[in-house]
Amino acid sequence: MIIIMKPNAGEKEIENVVSIVRGKGLDVNLSQGKEVTVIGVIGDKTKLDGSNVEIAPGVEKAVPLTESYKLCNIKFHPEPTVVRCGDVRIGGGATVIAGPCAVENEQQMLETARGVKAAGAHILRGGAYKPRTSPYSFQGLKEEGLKLLRKAADAAHMPCVTEVIDFDSLKTACRYVDMLQIGARNMQNFELLKEAGHAGVPVVLKRGMSATIEEWLNAAEYILASGCREVVLCERGIRTFERSTRNTLDIAAVPVLKAKTHLPVIVDPSHAAGVRAYIPALTRAALAADADGVMIEVHNNPACALSDGDQSLDIAQFADLMASIPCLK
Amino acid sequence: MIIIMKPNAGEKEIENVVSIVRGKGLDVNLSQGKEVTVIGVIGDKTKLDGSNVEIAPGVEKAVPLTESYKLCNIKFHPEPTVVRCGDVRIGGGATVIAGPCAVENEQQMLETARGVKAAGAHILRGGAYKPRTSPYSFQGLKEEGLKLLRKAADAAHMPCVTEVIDFDSLKTACRYVDMLQIGARNMQNFELLKEAGHAGVPVVLKRGMSATIEEWLNAAEYILASGCREVVLCERGIRTFERSTRNTLDIAAVPVLKAKTHLPVIVDPSHAAGVRAYIPALTRAALAADADGVMIEVHNNPACALSDGDQSLDIAQFADLMASIPCLK
Amino acid sequence: MIIIMKPNAGEKEIENVVSIVRGKGLDVNLSQGKEVTVIGVIGDKTKLDGSNVEIAPGVEKAVPLTESYKLCNIKFHPEPTVVRCGDVRIGGGATVIAGPCAVENEQQMLETARGVKAAGAHILRGGAYKPRTSPYSFQGLKEEGLKLLRKAADAAHMPCVTEVIDFDSLKTACRYVDMLQIGARNMQNFELLKEAGHAGVPVVLKRGMSATIEEWLNAAEYILASGCREVVLCERGIRTFERSTRNTLDIAAVPVLKAKTHLPVIVDPSHAAGVRAYIPALTRAALAADADGVMIEVHNNPACALSDGDQSLDIAQFADLMASIPCLK
Amino acid sequence: MIIIMKPNAGEKEIENVVSIVRGKGLDVNLSQGKEVTVIGVIGDKTKLDGSNVEIAPGVEKAVPLTESYKLCNIKFHPEPTVVRCGDVRIGGGATVIAGPCAVENEQQMLETARGVKAAGAHILRGGAYKPRTSPYSFQGLKEEGLKLLRKAADAAHMPCVTEVIDFDSLKTACRYVDMLQIGARNMQNFELLKEAGHAGVPVVLKRGMSATIEEWLNAAEYILASGCREVVLCERGIRTFERSTRNTLDIAAVPVLKAKTHLPVIVDPSHAAGVRAYIPALTRAALAADADGVMIEVHNNPACALSDGDQSLDIAQFADLMASIPCLK
Repeated sequence: MIIIMKPNAGEKEIENVVSIVRGKGLDVNLSQGKEVTVIGVIGDKTKLDGSNVEIAPGVEKAVPLTESYKLCNIKFHPEPTVVRCGDVRIGGGATVIAGPCAVENEQQMLETARGVKAAGAHILRGGAYKPRTSPYSFQGLKEEGLKLLRKAADAAHMPCVTEVIDFDSLKTACRYVDMLQIGARNMQNFELLKEAGHAGVPVVLKRGMSATIEEWLNAAEYILASGCREVVLCERGIRTFERSTRNTLDIAAVPVLKAKTHLPVIVDPSHAAGVRAYIPALTRAALAADADGVMIEVHNNPACALSDGDQSLDIAQFADLMASIPCLK
Repeated sequence: MIIIMKPNAGEKEIENVVSIVRGKGLDVNLSQGKEVTVIGVIGDKTKLDGSNVEIAPGVEKAVPLTESYKLCNIKFHPEPTVVRCGDVRIGGGATVIAGPCAVENEQQMLETARGVKAAGAHILRGGAYKPRTSPYSFQGLKEEGLKLLRKAADAAHMPCVTEVIDFDSLKTACRYVDMLQIGARNMQNFELLKEAGHAGVPVVLKRGMSATIEEWLNAAEYILASGCREVVLCERGIRTFERSTRNTLDIAAVPVLKAKTHLPVIVDPSHAAGVRAYIPALTRAALAADADGVMIEVHNNPACALSDGDQSLDIAQFADLMASIPCLK
Repeated sequence: MIIIMKPNAGEKEIENVVSIVRGKGLDVNLSQGKEVTVIGVIGDKTKLDGSNVEIAPGVEKAVPLTESYKLCNIKFHPEPTVVRCGDVRIGGGATVIAGPCAVENEQQMLETARGVKAAGAHILRGGAYKPRTSPYSFQGLKEEGLKLLRKAADAAHMPCVTEVIDFDSLKTACRYVDMLQIGARNMQNFELLKEAGHAGVPVVLKRGMSATIEEWLNAAEYILASGCREVVLCERGIRTFERSTRNTLDIAAVPVLKAKTHLPVIVDPSHAAGVRAYIPALTRAALAADADGVMIEVHNNPACALSDGDQSLDIAQFADLMASIPCLK
Repeated sequence: MIIIMKPNAGEKEIENVVSIVRGKGLDVNLSQGKEVTVIGVIGDKTKLDGSNVEIAPGVEKAVPLTESYKLCNIKFHPEPTVVRCGDVRIGGGATVIAGPCAVENEQQMLETARGVKAAGAHILRGGAYKPRTSPYSFQGLKEEGLKLLRKAADAAHMPCVTEVIDFDSLKTACRYVDMLQIGARNMQNFELLKEAGHAGVPVVLKRGMSATIEEWLNAAEYILASGCREVVLCERGIRTFERSTRNTLDIAAVPVLKAKTHLPVIVDPSHAAGVRAYIPALTRAALAADADGVMIEVHNNPACALSDGDQSLDIAQFADLMASIPCLK
């Protein structure tokens, strides 16, 4: 960490900061420029936590030099992580997760599962617990939905993933699915992250809609710090001023994350776009940017979907999309 | 709800939409313009949920005419709500909530409580469960912290409020405090909102850092729909591109909310600014904009605070601020 | 246009709005629902300009049904436009524009031009007039730079494009280059747009860093309305809260624009990323999303570039990137 | 400036950076920590422009320690600037600028001018050159409008201000008005800023809708560096995801600017809100936050305004607002 003093900071103020730092068992390197003095902190900066050196008199700002996330940091773990979901690997190739936003009934799940499998998808998705903006919207079939998801996944010989939203749904889901998903709205629900980290299954962590990449990696760190090493990051669009799409897909998050973490990175073009017609272009872009996979909403009959019908592909559209992607052939 | 057809939509497509709407027991009003046809839906539009009429062939978009939140909507409840926290009223005046970000120890709490009370604060705040970006940061004293908060509040003859982050903390907090707070990161943790709505105490609901005012009101609706009528909305800044402040205080949220809801609205200038020096100006602005109160971080010794020291006022600064506000005299 | 009345609007208020609309020579279609009345305006809504019907008593809001841009609207011109820059076509294929941020000297331009041409680029770029955030930064070689740009373009047998920033630079640039560029900061400099539309050469219009797609298309409309039919839209990233990249590349703008306009769409990954290492992934993503081309900053010696050195590829890196793109082979 | 090396940077890379810095005639201070090496640059960092030291091998990032704006920096000019517009002072009090968005006709201007003057306004505003999103909207009366503005200002014994959008309008406006305004869309139209700086009249510089405060101050620096010392900064809302208001008023910009610059700061609540009903609360908030004034859209008959009618107060509403502000009494 570097502590930058204000231009008019006096000797006393500099000495005070130095003594705070030394008092924590750290050494300093003093750099006195013409305009400003800079104090370099030598040693483990976490020792400074709670010292509030950044508000000591005369301090302009404190600049951290190292990231606060360690376990998911590529600097300390340069080897890319490959996550296993059932017998499917995520990382080092293009993995396709597909299925409906919400589990609705058995026929829907069986038809969709078989359809996406035939088109080349690797993992089935389906929501049984739905976090919805309005309390008056459909909230999911809960455990009944998990049973239908499992049944459809087995029928199509695929592993499956579902979103969990609290401790209860997490515990229940672990009995039925191969991978858990933490949604965007819960990305900083830290208690849920810790619990997911203890669950013993891989976890897909979606980016919060206004989370920086650094906050996202810190959220992943919560899961890793709780014992789970199999975390997949899923970019799903961020909130911006643009309204032609539901969110703005931050496609650059893919190369940025590849430079910062060893965890696999996938992209959800369906929630990013919120408009069915834009999903194929975004899917191709994600894979061209070297994402480790995509998660796409597919419904056997979008016109009757109970949620997100307007952003779901039908099975034929999904099959066309899959056929258009060179790296999946 | 109004359904707007595409310019080139044909007779068949229009008839199809009309039949979907009528099939749900709703009536339609057809408006065929030169360029576009518009279909007005007459009756309770929630009957259309799951019909996905917005993706029927030929439909350009569906525009809702009424808000999805009802219980917190001023249209249906024009009388302003006054929330009672202990013997303090929030609504119809300027209520001041003050105290440290985190409860740290008994002396800190007693000194701060007495200090803010003497300066004119009405309610004591203090965090015992801290959601922190990094898993390696101080996470709060938990139940021990709640005991210290209660003790200090009693010593200063004030009611108190604390943040809850999951079912456990919520249940525990209810035994110690007069009002619960749901933080920005949990604004769309819908399970927690429902549980808070059952707790039998008033709830402060902070705005999520990227939540629209409409989403925020829908989140409040979750609490009201679970049985709690005493909800206070707290604007605490939204995330934007500007970085001179930690967040951008959306001061206009105050008059906007006053036009849309009967719930009281308070402002947290401390989290909005993230910089101590800007808090007085933002506090005065909030009250001038007719907010029902403010929530301010105050610490008896900010230089030693375990969290948010750089945005906390000390007791003398807080007293100066209080003295500068005409409506508090 | 649809005019939505407030729930409590009375007969008189409705009649008043109807009479305003009819007074402008337009017909109305009245739809009286249980909760709200909706007034459809039949005919050319521009007749309503200046009527301020949206603030008449009892009006909730007015919803436009048609876009305000006409000449660049795909609804009225379904055939994709192909723009000619010298003997290069933009539209219907992948066109690559490459070159340095700023023209610096003859050797730099000749080396870079020959290098990018050899690697497969089609058009040379180079800035002679540089809009810079600080008045103390390098502001470009002006006409001298244009001469060097032209010379290098001729030597490498390529057409060239340069940014113009006011009437003077526009007039001068027209004597040297094959295509003009309006930069992000000038996207809503409407006088400059009009002048560019009169210049008789094709124009690349970059998206403003906080411009919605609709505003961008309206800005293009200014150029088209001034007589120029050869406009290329260039997505270069928008401003969001994320800071790992200089801007957030809105990759979805490509399919969105393809659905709304007949103009060709290219992507500038260099300004979007602001970090050299992320440019290859973004370039591949742009072309996979079906952009009509890319504009990439390349410098023969980035370590000595006078501007944007940190986001420029050197010639070898550019050649590697070009070789990695299937559709360019 | 501080140059932070990558954790794995070797001796050679450090030496290379040191030699680049020394080669520019600057001295260095080397701080070799356990994890990273930091190189402090001693002397005038502008000598490093064009050295691109930030992309030299082994460099993580370069952190500037001083702002790039000098003339408007409070560090170098601690005394607050008071700007004179005619016989009105801006700075050190609450100055009220009021008038219509666009000049439309003589009666409108005379009525509005007399009305706002009677209510207590100090300066008359009115637009003669209107930058409009669509080329098909009303673009202003141009010189004819300036004459009407001047006439009305004289009749009401007030100085006046108008927006300029290019060199021509700037030159013409200088013959009629007491102060120029550069609008949000032109905040980074650097050629216009320079020209305004030469005009010999005070300038109101509005914040660009996605400009950081730092960029804004650099834009002001362009005007000051061109010779004009009388610049007023006007916060008018920034673009965010929130849509209940046209823009999000960044009220914190007031105290932030007060801490960074000696220039006066005013607030435009009309463009920020975009909704008439929210203007009084925002005006009171701005003055409570210690802004040096406000600029408010007032029209003698908003229902007939040719632009921005929905965000204009009528004269009675304006008078009520003025009467509600303690510091104006």
